[in-house]
Amino acid sequence: MPRPDKHVFVCTQARPQGHPRGSCTASGCADVMNEFMNQIQARNLFEKIGLTNTGCMGPCMLGPSVLVYPEGIMYGKVTKADVTTIIDQHLLGGTPVESLIAPAEVW
Amino acid sequence: MPRPDKHVFVCTQARPQGHPRGSCTASGCADVMNEFMNQIQARNLFEKIGLTNTGCMGPCMLGPSVLVYPEGIMYGKVTKADVTTIIDQHLLGGTPVESLIAPAEVW
Repeated sequence: MPRPDKHVFVCTQARPQGHPRGSCTASGCADVMNEFMNQIQARNLFEKIGLTNTGCMGPCMLGPSVLVYPEGIMYGKVTKADVTTIIDQHLLGGTPVESLIAPAEVW
Repeated sequence: MPRPDKHVFVCTQARPQGHPRGSCTASGCADVMNEFMNQIQARNLFEKIGLTNTGCMGPCMLGPSVLVYPEGIMYGKVTKADVTTIIDQHLLGGTPVESLIAPAEVW
């Protein structure tokens, strides 16, 4: 991809069923990843927004985790329905979505 | 992890043998990922440097690919031997390693 204005990292870590840390896969990250992909494609945002899946970024109890650089803003418990808000308000509009930001003790 | 000063993303994408795009796994990313992990642990750099493995970031022909945020600097053809230079000169010293930066046409 070209160097994007905003780069979205979606944790897609999986762990065995019943693992004490859980995982972003168990909490539904696939829906979030797919929604970012679909919207970037449908709205032709390839040059503005980069999208990459990742291994564990740490705050497993708050998954699905979504990290946005260059700001370094970590969102927690992101749902498919939040993706439009993150894209419109933050990635295109420049204002992070306060209600989804992970608390300071985890990031 | 706590919010790091520098966040290193190492592509660990794999593809089937003979795939025309190759992959960072085929070009040796595991050695690079392990060397970052070992040095971060040995030098106790957990609070300064974040490390995350990723899926494909695009410049497969220049793998192993290593991306550093918040700067958004993409390194290509990174070897285990380059890891010390990246840590000392860029991640701790603040000066990117020019000789390893991917060309503008790929990032």
